[in-house]
Amino acid sequence: MQANSQNSSLSHLNDRGEAQMVDVSAKGATVREALARGQVRMDRATLAAIAAGNLPKGDVLATARLAGIMAAKQTASLIPLCHPLPLSLVEVTLTPDPDLPGYQITARVKTKAETGVEMEALTAVTVTALTLYDMAKAIDKAMDITHIHLVQKTGGKSGDWHRPA
Amino acid sequence: MQANSQNSSLSHLNDRGEAQMVDVSAKGATVREALARGQVRMDRATLAAIAAGNLPKGDVLATARLAGIMAAKQTASLIPLCHPLPLSLVEVTLTPDPDLPGYQITARVKTKAETGVEMEALTAVTVTALTLYDMAKAIDKAMDITHIHLVQKTGGKSGDWHRPA
Amino acid sequence: MQANSQNSSLSHLNDRGEAQMVDVSAKGATVREALARGQVRMDRATLAAIAAGNLPKGDVLATARLAGIMAAKQTASLIPLCHPLPLSLVEVTLTPDPDLPGYQITARVKTKAETGVEMEALTAVTVTALTLYDMAKAIDKAMDITHIHLVQKTGGKSGDWHRPA
Amino acid sequence: MQANSQNSSLSHLNDRGEAQMVDVSAKGATVREALARGQVRMDRATLAAIAAGNLPKGDVLATARLAGIMAAKQTASLIPLCHPLPLSLVEVTLTPDPDLPGYQITARVKTKAETGVEMEALTAVTVTALTLYDMAKAIDKAMDITHIHLVQKTGGKSGDWHRPA
Amino acid sequence: MQANSQNSSLSHLNDRGEAQMVDVSAKGATVREALARGQVRMDRATLAAIAAGNLPKGDVLATARLAGIMAAKQTASLIPLCHPLPLSLVEVTLTPDPDLPGYQITARVKTKAETGVEMEALTAVTVTALTLYDMAKAIDKAMDITHIHLVQKTGGKSGDWHRPA
Amino acid sequence: MQANSQNSSLSHLNDRGEAQMVDVSAKGATVREALARGQVRMDRATLAAIAAGNLPKGDVLATARLAGIMAAKQTASLIPLCHPLPLSLVEVTLTPDPDLPGYQITARVKTKAETGVEMEALTAVTVTALTLYDMAKAIDKAMDITHIHLVQKTGGKSGDWHRPA
Repeated sequence: MQANSQNSSLSHLNDRGEAQMVDVSAKGATVREALARGQVRMDRATLAAIAAGNLPKGDVLATARLAGIMAAKQTASLIPLCHPLPLSLVEVTLTPDPDLPGYQITARVKTKAETGVEMEALTAVTVTALTLYDMAKAIDKAMDITHIHLVQKTGGKSGDWHRPA
Repeated sequence: MQANSQNSSLSHLNDRGEAQMVDVSAKGATVREALARGQVRMDRATLAAIAAGNLPKGDVLATARLAGIMAAKQTASLIPLCHPLPLSLVEVTLTPDPDLPGYQITARVKTKAETGVEMEALTAVTVTALTLYDMAKAIDKAMDITHIHLVQKTGGKSGDWHRPA
Repeated sequence: MQANSQNSSLSHLNDRGEAQMVDVSAKGATVREALARGQVRMDRATLAAIAAGNLPKGDVLATARLAGIMAAKQTASLIPLCHPLPLSLVEVTLTPDPDLPGYQITARVKTKAETGVEMEALTAVTVTALTLYDMAKAIDKAMDITHIHLVQKTGGKSGDWHRPA
Repeated sequence: MQANSQNSSLSHLNDRGEAQMVDVSAKGATVREALARGQVRMDRATLAAIAAGNLPKGDVLATARLAGIMAAKQTASLIPLCHPLPLSLVEVTLTPDPDLPGYQITARVKTKAETGVEMEALTAVTVTALTLYDMAKAIDKAMDITHIHLVQKTGGKSGDWHRPA
Repeated sequence: MQANSQNSSLSHLNDRGEAQMVDVSAKGATVREALARGQVRMDRATLAAIAAGNLPKGDVLATARLAGIMAAKQTASLIPLCHPLPLSLVEVTLTPDPDLPGYQITARVKTKAETGVEMEALTAVTVTALTLYDMAKAIDKAMDITHIHLVQKTGGKSGDWHRPA
Repeated sequence: MQANSQNSSLSHLNDRGEAQMVDVSAKGATVREALARGQVRMDRATLAAIAAGNLPKGDVLATARLAGIMAAKQTASLIPLCHPLPLSLVEVTLTPDPDLPGYQITARVKTKAETGVEMEALTAVTVTALTLYDMAKAIDKAMDITHIHLVQKTGGKSGDWHRPA
């Protein structure tokens, strides 16, 4: 019993504990939005090199941002039980943070669909971070991709959710 | 000058600061290996639910592990300037850690190629973590994917690298 | 004339016999479901090894099931004239059958769309079977993937269809 | 013990029963070839319609053949533990067989690599069959995709294998 | 100011000049259609060889046409800021033109969505042309893919557009 | 006979006129390079807007360049009979040309493989051009993607080739 209710809480498992893509065909398509966040921590000198290398028209941040946007569209191919969704907006921002030191990354994703886009936002943040790592790894292999989490989600029957402070 | 040398340190940028896939055609194909690591931090109750939901044959950890392995093979599609490589091994492990509480994730990747597989290992860790999040997000949206980094790389002309303790 | 009417029966061909993706823009989006089935026949010893290897937490069946689910989402990339569809459910089951001996595989797929998901269900069964073959081919190369067919489809203007017994 | 040796026979499972992509980095790259076969059984009238619809320049068989060739190149994306391989040849043939009635399908795949192309050949046969189904399903939903198996493999350390008659 | 208004004209750039996928969630889903066109110019002998090679059942044109149709479905993976769309029709035609000499290619794409399918139609034309080049490059490497442009688009709030003569 | 020799000139067709991926397993892996070129012609005002929108850090050209690089890696998925190849370099350049007016695009691709990378270079040019179109189509739908061709190829048994002036 206990096991059963726990299984059904892990919503991608059926009664036999098997992974399945859950049925959303009875749910209405509504506008949903998710905001996720993460960080890439790096050496202070790496942060300076990216800033320098990115001016006047260096492609470091543009490359990372585009990789994140494009990855959001591949979420259903990467995450086995995600539903393929029509995305209506993907927006990725990279902000230098001298206190980390490193970059703060956020991704905002919207859809009009039967289920939410939390995984799309998290995937965008993650692949943006991986690409930033790839672009700078020749000078700093010890960078840390960290604190990736959902900030908030809105829309859908289960209601809004905001990460506790 | 300074700018130039910094640009060339960011090895994916050419002299004009433009992103390009670098030339590895003159490098020899040698066996290379990379090991990466990361964590998913979660509520203690979530860790317990996954443990319970995964027995006797629940698919939570198997799903996350496979997603990581399959994602390693998509690295060159996800990370814009990565070279497509023939992978000779991908191995992902998920270890419960009651002290986090959560899961420790490692990925080991090998190739016989002209360039290394650091990004493949980091991508495997990351997508394993994202999938674990996806499997358990119905009961814990506040999970944190964190401390993803390269542990070591071996092989290739640039030599071995081990993350400083 | 005869040729024409036969061509139009092969609905993916136009009047010139050329393959085209047909127009579904005038059709309404309704809930549609398809159920497909297939078998992997194998040596009795192979069936036993999978059963043994799958306990207590071996990944053989989980891997095959996930591969089938993920493949359903790639149907429009694999089958040239299939429409890309938002899938609302994919469910794959593998049942050992000592009388084959081997595994019975079924896949159930649902969508709310302008066209049906027969190909998605058949693709899921097929890739599940191929993955089971891959997992066990080291001990049994002679396995046979067989009797893959549509069991039933429901929804849509053309009405329900059930495979004759 | 018994369990262990059985697990290691299922070569994609490690000692803990977990699915992993096995290490082929120590193996030499040699020319390897695989031949696979399968059938699509259909109504006699369907076979006639395809024959008619395919003349003078109808695309039914060309579409199915190309889908199989292209799918062979996607094998490592579809089958979770397959190694990505450089394919040096993919050849698909479709032969009408009035006795089935239906089509006999064969696929021959070659590579120069560390591991074999059995799964590529089986995937090509399978997706060719699925596409043939898709092209003709408007007139015959009851078609059966059947008897898909490896015929032979050559090359590699484990030696040649021919399916017993 | 001037810069800002120009930026907002380049609709994929935000106020900071960063590329983003724009928000279409407030737009209604309506039927939209796009028609694109292009040419492959070639040696007269190449055109003759394709015509000869394509009879009675050669696959040159069928291969090029299918490649274009399948590529239309990959548009959102190829063009970084394109929205993934459910396509309701893709139709590619190849017409020999002795006056070029070469082939005229057109692609017509329809959707019921929040944004248009211009890029899908252009992608279909382009990949059809590239595939025709690939099929004939052994005898004519100097072929020219040329004059690819949008002919017209209909549907959507911004209204119809027809290319000026 | 005549037909046969013509068919074999169209190297992707077999004796029956069927499309097949040709066998390169007997060929040696050597360094090969291809250079392709193309143009996007546009309104003079569009060229000015891109120049303005791209400064100081607008992403227009970086987005187009990255799309071209990433597309080169997808060539074997897009062009049905292309062999999947390990690319050792992809380099895309966009040069404004006030005389067109518009942009000149070149792509240079290298590999160490059994067959050449002409299609990869042409695909990179083409998708760069399509992305530039996508970025600017809100202000200029009449842009023309034109004069895409191979400039030269080097390496491989068939020897070097340079486009006649």
